[in-house]
Amino acid sequence: MTISHRRHILRRHLAAAELDAILVTDLVNVRYLSGFTGSNAALLIPTHGETPVLATDGRYRTQAAQQAPDAQIVIERACAPALVRAAEAAGVKRLGFESHVLTVDAHAALQRVGGDLELVRAPGMVEALREVKDAGEIAILRLACEAADAALKDLIESGGLRAGRTEKEVGRELEARMLDHGADGPSFETIVATGANSAIPHHRPTDAVLAAGDFVKIDFGALVAGYHSDMTRTFVLSPVAQWQRDIYDLVATSQRAGREALVPGTTLSAVDRASRQVIIDAGYGEQFSHGLGHGVGLQIHEAPGINSAAAGTLLAGSVVTVEPGVYLPGRGGVRIEDTLVVSGDTTHTPELLTRFPKELAIL
Amino acid sequence: MTISHRRHILRRHLAAAELDAILVTDLVNVRYLSGFTGSNAALLIPTHGETPVLATDGRYRTQAAQQAPDAQIVIERACAPALVRAAEAAGVKRLGFESHVLTVDAHAALQRVGGDLELVRAPGMVEALREVKDAGEIAILRLACEAADAALKDLIESGGLRAGRTEKEVGRELEARMLDHGADGPSFETIVATGANSAIPHHRPTDAVLAAGDFVKIDFGALVAGYHSDMTRTFVLSPVAQWQRDIYDLVATSQRAGREALVPGTTLSAVDRASRQVIIDAGYGEQFSHGLGHGVGLQIHEAPGINSAAAGTLLAGSVVTVEPGVYLPGRGGVRIEDTLVVSGDTTHTPELLTRFPKELAIL
Repeated sequence: MTISHRRHILRRHLAAAELDAILVTDLVNVRYLSGFTGSNAALLIPTHGETPVLATDGRYRTQAAQQAPDAQIVIERACAPALVRAAEAAGVKRLGFESHVLTVDAHAALQRVGGDLELVRAPGMVEALREVKDAGEIAILRLACEAADAALKDLIESGGLRAGRTEKEVGRELEARMLDHGADGPSFETIVATGANSAIPHHRPTDAVLAAGDFVKIDFGALVAGYHSDMTRTFVLSPVAQWQRDIYDLVATSQRAGREALVPGTTLSAVDRASRQVIIDAGYGEQFSHGLGHGVGLQIHEAPGINSAAAGTLLAGSVVTVEPGVYLPGRGGVRIEDTLVVSGDTTHTPELLTRFPKELAIL
Repeated sequence: MTISHRRHILRRHLAAAELDAILVTDLVNVRYLSGFTGSNAALLIPTHGETPVLATDGRYRTQAAQQAPDAQIVIERACAPALVRAAEAAGVKRLGFESHVLTVDAHAALQRVGGDLELVRAPGMVEALREVKDAGEIAILRLACEAADAALKDLIESGGLRAGRTEKEVGRELEARMLDHGADGPSFETIVATGANSAIPHHRPTDAVLAAGDFVKIDFGALVAGYHSDMTRTFVLSPVAQWQRDIYDLVATSQRAGREALVPGTTLSAVDRASRQVIIDAGYGEQFSHGLGHGVGLQIHEAPGINSAAAGTLLAGSVVTVEPGVYLPGRGGVRIEDTLVVSGDTTHTPELLTRFPKELAIL
């Protein structure tokens, strides 16, 4: 599926919504629909017509022509107003806009330049398209997950995870090793949480020193060509205690149940429940304090959210995380997280992109 | 100046605008006015009353209490609606909101829960306060600039900038050295641009190899405790050509003129002109294709913008960059950039925070 095919699908949705065009102002959505990655841009997609109009400023003249060769380019600092004027001049009557992105002030500015054109709320139309990944996107996500896998393997095999190092040192080494394996950078701020810190779901690395008997929870990912990987593994620094084995086994069982529930057509809340019920039944429901997972792609968190309150069903070709956790304040916590591609066939298991082993490793 | 003093000044502005309170939804502004750094929050500041109300979700219960001890904490996933309800219950009639930040959809949601309360556009009120830094902020910015200075010094003294390395390798080493000097990370994506790439104002590091006779332009900064430094230096890898000396001297002269124009009360456009005129007079006006500088603080780009179209004057205590450049497509470019504190006294020169030398270095 090429970028022009993405626009083709979008145009069908625009026609169904009786819009003459859509003004895309979210920069990630602009990238998705045009290939352009600059920091100031907007995109006009007509419902009837092949050629999108990309507005950006003079800094990006060359880059825009290279990255979006099939778009008409408009060079203007105020991108969105320029495209509203262009739409009005082209006879657009009903122009969809990203009401979940555009600010109140920006909307007022567009109303001033739009003449008789009607600005119509069209929230989330592109995000809904982005939920299902095409083959090119999945290929890049595979590379991103491989870079993260390889970096963690290097870290462990070289003895980088050991008592005496700090959380920051471990995080920094892991990030450097991802670069060695082709990542453009970390896909979010790496979490390294040792001992009692591992009980904090989102912990920023500190100068805390890893010690014997600690859980060490590592949540990290690699960014490759704009796409994010996401993975969590939890280790124990020897000696391991029985309560650690018990919690680890519980989370691993829950995580497996979550992965096995990734069948297209399943409601998102049922996927969450399949994993969560394992933890609730063991009496730790209160200690699993977040949703089960989320979509991942051009953003680290995107549609669909997989949690108890989510509406909708799991779509074939979506790429999601499954990441249950149990957190015991003051003692420690375990989270195990993979990134997976939901299969197009209900009889097939999802493709596991983060392949680093999940058996309890006692280092 | 403490955080409570920042709120005190804001309350005077709220009273002048006849607002009963303001709803702050920009997360950087929430941090500035409360100290809280979580990723989901909103803040209600009553015009008459000392206690702000901070809303965040359950993940941040402990952190919110620690970082914002003088705020009333509300735990709720949908932060802004919770605070609008709280405001209405407290008798607020006119509630200011950040119309330059709040989306059209979020605004509609607030209108649904606000009852008789009137939502009043109040764009940029907190950003205007943030333009003038207090002593604590300047102390942190000084540390951030020192970390960047020290990293660049290490890189140069260890021979890290030499023919044969790639832009990516240099950028990566520089970023690692900033961490060694106490940075929490780079303050933006480091620019390393060699040879013809140096003519691209904002260039992302590639695998391009540094070669003898290249200009190497490095634009980078350190992030310390949420504050950003920003500096550009341009080097030549021996041998140097006469055209390189000429362009370098021109930009250095322009940059000095810009620094010397940093006198409180000067119009922002006049500061830009003071620096730009030097380059225009030399016949390179078209090759200096961006504004002269910008404020820097909790964001890498914040008020004031210093460019030919800027309204307003330079304020004492603001922290700004001065960064003229001349870019010759296909040949190379030079930019020289410092971060400086505008003095409180028109007879004093600005404090230079980025102290790495600016004489042409031929390596």
